[in-house]
Amino acid sequence: MPTPKAASSRTPDATRRSERSRRAIYDAALALVVEVGYARTTVEGIASRAGVGKQTIYRWWPSKSAVLLDAYLDLTGQAGQEIQAGQVGGEERAEPAGLPDTGDLAADLKAVLRATVDELNDPRFEAPTRALTAEGVIDPELGARFVERLLEPQLRLYVRRLAAARDAGLLRPGADLRVAVELLVGPLTHRWLMRTRPLTHAYADELVDHVLQGIAPR
Amino acid sequence: MPTPKAASSRTPDATRRSERSRRAIYDAALALVVEVGYARTTVEGIASRAGVGKQTIYRWWPSKSAVLLDAYLDLTGQAGQEIQAGQVGGEERAEPAGLPDTGDLAADLKAVLRATVDELNDPRFEAPTRALTAEGVIDPELGARFVERLLEPQLRLYVRRLAAARDAGLLRPGADLRVAVELLVGPLTHRWLMRTRPLTHAYADELVDHVLQGIAPR
Repeated sequence: MPTPKAASSRTPDATRRSERSRRAIYDAALALVVEVGYARTTVEGIASRAGVGKQTIYRWWPSKSAVLLDAYLDLTGQAGQEIQAGQVGGEERAEPAGLPDTGDLAADLKAVLRATVDELNDPRFEAPTRALTAEGVIDPELGARFVERLLEPQLRLYVRRLAAARDAGLLRPGADLRVAVELLVGPLTHRWLMRTRPLTHAYADELVDHVLQGIAPR
Repeated sequence: MPTPKAASSRTPDATRRSERSRRAIYDAALALVVEVGYARTTVEGIASRAGVGKQTIYRWWPSKSAVLLDAYLDLTGQAGQEIQAGQVGGEERAEPAGLPDTGDLAADLKAVLRATVDELNDPRFEAPTRALTAEGVIDPELGARFVERLLEPQLRLYVRRLAAARDAGLLRPGADLRVAVELLVGPLTHRWLMRTRPLTHAYADELVDHVLQGIAPR
């Protein structure tokens, strides 16, 4: 998430104005991509809706995809802060905080997957997530940036949590933890994307129980 | 898949001409949706590229989404015929043929998932599948028709194959077979859609082994 250039050398008022512009640009970008789709969202349209000049956007971001990606990361970062209630510190979050580790692996994974269910069912997140995911499906370059900046860091958190459990002897030593994580996240995302069935906490729990049974010690 | 109306009362030449038009329309529809995306594909554009009048399309289909869906089902039906080498009879395939049942559940599931991997990696299928999946992600109505006509019939075939194995005592009696099927198909689709890792036969095999372990008799 970029901070306006040289913000630290500005007066407090200028910094506040920059922050207000950034917020207006993010809101405009997400609203537009939901309303008209990715293809018809333009930097001009975002600037006009945010009430800033086009050059303000180009000063901070090289392209519309860069704005949208940052706007979306900002949105999901806020979500993470709400869910984790203060575990995440300032806004300069380079890597998301780790998954909870209460010692009860199943309970921890269920808590995280249930929070994901809530987020995907929340209209504030659902619409932009769908718009950007759809574009990533057909645009490999955008998809790759999305995966690199958002999805892979999340998957690594799951792998790390499972590795801690494996090291504690709670999982089979040879289990492929990356595949196990995809077995948690893949069906959840698939059901949501395709809308085959309602996305519920019960489903999240079922996935966790199933996957843990598959990698339990023999 | 619709047959041109009253084709049976036509002369052989007229039927052949209708069939040629239908094929040209399908090819044009899929080529366009790949090249310009769903939103910019129009019935006019399909007609022009197929070399038929717009009214020819509207005589057989009510909308562009209906043409595209039939074109895509036709494409995947052909794929099924290639993979199953003659197991599928005529082109009036109401429900896809059942999954293979050699008595070796793991081998049968791996064969089917490997064929799916091959199809998703085949450029002929990959591009239109991505274009239509992306549109279904943001358009609930189109997504629902897709799921109802293509995805759910496939998922039911998996469930039926697993049910046969369960009835033979090879799976845990209380296992949720629908969730098991989503654990096979979800991660495969997710990895492909997001392009997180290469989609390989080895991955298909790993998914099958994992899921079967999760629903093995205790």
